[in-house]
Amino acid sequence: MIQEFIETRAYSEKLCEPLETEDFVIQPVEFVSPVKWHLAHTTWFFEVFILTKFKNNYSLYNEDFPYLFNSYYEAKGERVVRANRGNLSRPTVDQIFEYRTHVTKALKELLETNSAKKELLPLVEIGIHHEKQHQELLLMDIKYCFGHNPLLPVYNSDLDERSTQKIDPDWVKIPEGLYEIGHKGDGFSYDNETKAHKVFLQSFEIKSCLVTNGDFLEFMEQGGYENPLLWHAEAWDWIQEEKIGHPLYWQKTNEGWKEFHLSGLKMLDKSHILSHVSYFEAAAFAQWKGCRLPTEFEWEVAQQHFEWGKRWECTESAYSPYPNYQKAAGALGEYNGKFMVNQKVFRGGSGLTSKKHTRKTYRNFFHPHMRWQQSGVRLAK
Amino acid sequence: MIQEFIETRAYSEKLCEPLETEDFVIQPVEFVSPVKWHLAHTTWFFEVFILTKFKNNYSLYNEDFPYLFNSYYEAKGERVVRANRGNLSRPTVDQIFEYRTHVTKALKELLETNSAKKELLPLVEIGIHHEKQHQELLLMDIKYCFGHNPLLPVYNSDLDERSTQKIDPDWVKIPEGLYEIGHKGDGFSYDNETKAHKVFLQSFEIKSCLVTNGDFLEFMEQGGYENPLLWHAEAWDWIQEEKIGHPLYWQKTNEGWKEFHLSGLKMLDKSHILSHVSYFEAAAFAQWKGCRLPTEFEWEVAQQHFEWGKRWECTESAYSPYPNYQKAAGALGEYNGKFMVNQKVFRGGSGLTSKKHTRKTYRNFFHPHMRWQQSGVRLAK
Amino acid sequence: MIQEFIETRAYSEKLCEPLETEDFVIQPVEFVSPVKWHLAHTTWFFEVFILTKFKNNYSLYNEDFPYLFNSYYEAKGERVVRANRGNLSRPTVDQIFEYRTHVTKALKELLETNSAKKELLPLVEIGIHHEKQHQELLLMDIKYCFGHNPLLPVYNSDLDERSTQKIDPDWVKIPEGLYEIGHKGDGFSYDNETKAHKVFLQSFEIKSCLVTNGDFLEFMEQGGYENPLLWHAEAWDWIQEEKIGHPLYWQKTNEGWKEFHLSGLKMLDKSHILSHVSYFEAAAFAQWKGCRLPTEFEWEVAQQHFEWGKRWECTESAYSPYPNYQKAAGALGEYNGKFMVNQKVFRGGSGLTSKKHTRKTYRNFFHPHMRWQQSGVRLAK
Amino acid sequence: MIQEFIETRAYSEKLCEPLETEDFVIQPVEFVSPVKWHLAHTTWFFEVFILTKFKNNYSLYNEDFPYLFNSYYEAKGERVVRANRGNLSRPTVDQIFEYRTHVTKALKELLETNSAKKELLPLVEIGIHHEKQHQELLLMDIKYCFGHNPLLPVYNSDLDERSTQKIDPDWVKIPEGLYEIGHKGDGFSYDNETKAHKVFLQSFEIKSCLVTNGDFLEFMEQGGYENPLLWHAEAWDWIQEEKIGHPLYWQKTNEGWKEFHLSGLKMLDKSHILSHVSYFEAAAFAQWKGCRLPTEFEWEVAQQHFEWGKRWECTESAYSPYPNYQKAAGALGEYNGKFMVNQKVFRGGSGLTSKKHTRKTYRNFFHPHMRWQQSGVRLAK
Repeated sequence: MIQEFIETRAYSEKLCEPLETEDFVIQPVEFVSPVKWHLAHTTWFFEVFILTKFKNNYSLYNEDFPYLFNSYYEAKGERVVRANRGNLSRPTVDQIFEYRTHVTKALKELLETNSAKKELLPLVEIGIHHEKQHQELLLMDIKYCFGHNPLLPVYNSDLDERSTQKIDPDWVKIPEGLYEIGHKGDGFSYDNETKAHKVFLQSFEIKSCLVTNGDFLEFMEQGGYENPLLWHAEAWDWIQEEKIGHPLYWQKTNEGWKEFHLSGLKMLDKSHILSHVSYFEAAAFAQWKGCRLPTEFEWEVAQQHFEWGKRWECTESAYSPYPNYQKAAGALGEYNGKFMVNQKVFRGGSGLTSKKHTRKTYRNFFHPHMRWQQSGVRLAK
Repeated sequence: MIQEFIETRAYSEKLCEPLETEDFVIQPVEFVSPVKWHLAHTTWFFEVFILTKFKNNYSLYNEDFPYLFNSYYEAKGERVVRANRGNLSRPTVDQIFEYRTHVTKALKELLETNSAKKELLPLVEIGIHHEKQHQELLLMDIKYCFGHNPLLPVYNSDLDERSTQKIDPDWVKIPEGLYEIGHKGDGFSYDNETKAHKVFLQSFEIKSCLVTNGDFLEFMEQGGYENPLLWHAEAWDWIQEEKIGHPLYWQKTNEGWKEFHLSGLKMLDKSHILSHVSYFEAAAFAQWKGCRLPTEFEWEVAQQHFEWGKRWECTESAYSPYPNYQKAAGALGEYNGKFMVNQKVFRGGSGLTSKKHTRKTYRNFFHPHMRWQQSGVRLAK
Repeated sequence: MIQEFIETRAYSEKLCEPLETEDFVIQPVEFVSPVKWHLAHTTWFFEVFILTKFKNNYSLYNEDFPYLFNSYYEAKGERVVRANRGNLSRPTVDQIFEYRTHVTKALKELLETNSAKKELLPLVEIGIHHEKQHQELLLMDIKYCFGHNPLLPVYNSDLDERSTQKIDPDWVKIPEGLYEIGHKGDGFSYDNETKAHKVFLQSFEIKSCLVTNGDFLEFMEQGGYENPLLWHAEAWDWIQEEKIGHPLYWQKTNEGWKEFHLSGLKMLDKSHILSHVSYFEAAAFAQWKGCRLPTEFEWEVAQQHFEWGKRWECTESAYSPYPNYQKAAGALGEYNGKFMVNQKVFRGGSGLTSKKHTRKTYRNFFHPHMRWQQSGVRLAK
Repeated sequence: MIQEFIETRAYSEKLCEPLETEDFVIQPVEFVSPVKWHLAHTTWFFEVFILTKFKNNYSLYNEDFPYLFNSYYEAKGERVVRANRGNLSRPTVDQIFEYRTHVTKALKELLETNSAKKELLPLVEIGIHHEKQHQELLLMDIKYCFGHNPLLPVYNSDLDERSTQKIDPDWVKIPEGLYEIGHKGDGFSYDNETKAHKVFLQSFEIKSCLVTNGDFLEFMEQGGYENPLLWHAEAWDWIQEEKIGHPLYWQKTNEGWKEFHLSGLKMLDKSHILSHVSYFEAAAFAQWKGCRLPTEFEWEVAQQHFEWGKRWECTESAYSPYPNYQKAAGALGEYNGKFMVNQKVFRGGSGLTSKKHTRKTYRNFFHPHMRWQQSGVRLAK
């Protein structure tokens, strides 16, 4: 566990190596957080949920930081409103790295001396997974910042987000039946993956491959974004108001369609897997194909039959509690439960997900119009 | 069917008898429509979906009316944006009643001569149910208009919305098992109630009675609206921004809590059934009670064990398509499917629902913050 | 004075004769008030500023009306927010006419018995002018309601708003000098027209005629609305955001440009005087012509040399207090002074102005983007 | 001129010495620009208005910079919308300093070789004054950023913004008469200060001293912010909506009122000159005192009788063109003229104004609710 903790902390910092100081500061839109905020918030999480509780005589590194770096834990007091995170030039990036070092060291000491404590390890494990989650958010947010800068800066020319699939697309058939869904056993999971429970599924078919750029281009060329009958009513309002006409990072140029990646702007390759579409777009595409999106239960049952983990896969399922769901006690009860409305479940993982962070029962969730996550589309019928 | 059609048309007009001309015109908020719009829109529905298709040489009563009275059918062309319905003083109320008379007569003739036509009757049946739906909306909207007028006008002093329950509250236990959900057989249903399908439910308990005003008052008095840990994150933002602190039509006065009804402002009776709370409030109340809301499947399975139909009952279920759901062909396919995102299912019916309009498989749906429907709360665990 | 009072009250009611009940109710945009509100508000003005003060034992006709019909007098207590005036179907139009009759009668009696009272007559005179002002607003508001209804109803086919000028356009030259500005003497004026005071003007030239539709069409055809260099920065933002490309009531049709009037939609006549442009548009047009708008002082000094009263004439002058301006004591002090920021002075009068209401020192005022007033443009250099 | 140019460029950079890299990037509110944007924009101004025109074979330092650093010159093409200036982490601060060095050097060379060119020097002079203007904006913006950061960072503990007045407050009497207003002669002025022209003023009195913190505290303690009769209607809406209850940088603490300065948070000293109030607040204060604000003409005529230059002094005058005002030809015509609506003139200068930048005819301008400028109040009657 110490090893995993140290590596996770180090990996967050490694992700920042290609960045300039200026890149740590900005928040171009409310749902994107500054890089330095991610670095500090994950540190604050270890500090307030673990150090202040388990470490003797530990006092806060800085009395102002809880106000600055609490995300949404009402039980942990007042905080800077989310939209203002990018308005703060201080504390500086260097100061936040010092804060990280301080907390990492203190927690390492705690683990070396107190790891017998029964309540401690589960919290450290959550803290590690929390930080891994923010590692992906950090990459999503950098991509958003760079992809919306007219200079289109390159984050890392070696990080290739583009992905192909080796197999031919086929329909996997799953018979009707009672299936078990959700997390069981000793491994780590979030509370929203439990309790494991039985679900009855009708027979269904699901594609072995994800939708490609070429598939989606065909939808666009045949007027998909202009036909209201393909869209949910709220989706149609959204594409009109926001003037949406292609996936998030696509750009039409004189040379043809290009796509922005963390490695820079590249020609669009039709054989690559489609990325960065919202649930709204995924559902309209499925409708146009005469198909539908799978539910999260169908996905979980079928997942052994296909390769996954390259894109967060959009499901038809609304994010709701499982039967007998129990929120964690205390502030950590705010981790998941209070977001269980108006969001869609995404399953799988993405090319930006940190190692050992996802699993077949993992439930990610986004609002139906969001598309800065590296999402993809798998069809069902 | 002719009889049912005539009665339904007449009942809409009867509902307007207590109104002054001015009451037909206003739209105090976007989701409320003017009474005269309801009267005309239900008429337009019969005209464009039936008369123009099945009646020889039928020409539109007024070429401008489709633009004015189409609600949201993209396949039926351009229309006045919803928020502007209340900006139109013309056509007058009298002109709309003439329009109704014209269309009612034409459709009656059509039915008397062509009722053998196979495709005709299902459409008339939908038209009738569509109008019944708008009858409830019309009452909800009048209540909103009058309940937000400082003079608090009385719509009908004989219409008593207040309701009590004769039995003692108890927990009904339902064993786990495979149950059949959804509409089957010959009777009318909307497309969203089909296909009937099997659902596996864990064992659960559900209350035989709805939550009362007294129950909810206790929640309020114990600080329910001030405790963020009881609320979804979006709900908490909503109650802060909209300054929500009690159910929609409650008013605190020197004499104590009162509630506005279509029969006027009355003292709040703690034994009456709670009305006009949103999903957000229902969920917070359930959380505070250490319970939860039932899913729509649980509700449907358990409904035979309790009295229902007095309030639309809030469920935890997001409004989604059933397995093998098929949208109707053509413009009527827009009736239900395109709203299946970001809404919650409400089951049962209310004191304002028209006769023969609801059934045990009926799925009503509202956004989680809406509360102008006559909604209620039933707990589960 | 009694005669003038009776006639003014009767004229407001006469203006409503062509209207249907529904037309009294709507408020399609915040700055437009419902007709019934105008009728009640002018009545409330007489009631609270005169009857409750001067008439023995007078009690309010209805205790709720001050809350409903106070416009903006903070000193007179709480009131319905402006944007909600159109949300109130009650009191009905009939009830408001009864209210008018009651107050008119009571004030007539007061005048017949107490007209000797020194403070009384000036207040009645203000009340009369206040009602005349609202008569013009009422017509402006009806025009807005009908001009934004897809049916384009006719208010009065005999009311011809179109207007030509008999003389040839010429430049009137005014020499530099000290001139006296503002109201003097015994006749009625508002406080904002005083104190009369000396102003030094440079020599200037001003057009004897107002700009015509033909003049403005040329501006449009030569890309006036597309050239940012002609516009104030705020004006340019406004025309982009609101997609402004022609005067308020112009419509491009297959037959050419038409203009909506209270007498209905008519072909645009190039020789008619331009109407319904904002200060922003007037200033851009002047810029394009290599001219400018006159100041209100230039206008007042030059007005004897040209015909005026057909359009409210846009000036370059911001609406500010004259030297030694004194607000009236009490609530009436709120009549003018508190609006003296961010508005432009308009001089003259319009085809919709009530008789005996305007004069050469009259200062009307509108925000620079407003154009539902019957405004026109006169150039200076 | 070369000397002045070099010094001005160097002074902008000197102002940045106390800053961390992060401080150059943020834009907490639309009207505040990032420090690095100020540094680049003033450089762009020299580049596009001078180097590209007068320097042989000069090519743009970076083809993307005009899009990034044009402020509002429509004639100079497309640009990043103002609100997005703070969303750009690239180009980095270092890159912008390199850009500055490049342009400073190129312009210096141009001046050394071509200074005989008649059109050149006036443009360089404007460029210098433009940069001086941005030096003050830069300080205003840093103050806003730091004053809204919960850590309240110190910019420069030696920069003392606090200021007292040595003389006793007295009324200066100015007789009525014809006065000359505006800039004349050879010295530099902006186009908005011309043409010099005669203005007739009534006799008036003006205070020899500016309003102090103590004066304003009395206004606050006597309910000034709670009395609607003291405020313009738009001002009253503004203080309600924005919850305004004290000058911008005041904070109520347990120890009493404090004020944030560029040198940090300090106890409020009643004898110091009041700063950072809007026109709206200045006018309400004057109303409460039974006085008024001076017009800009009164200020200019009286200025020789009092000390000024410590605060931008709020006037009653709307920002309008002087008689015979001529906009400069080409893009520089956009410098001033297009802002002449909805703003108020401020006269004098402030403790943050760069040396040799202001003069008695200088007309600064701000919207009536703005208060991040170091403004003050002088009463007249």
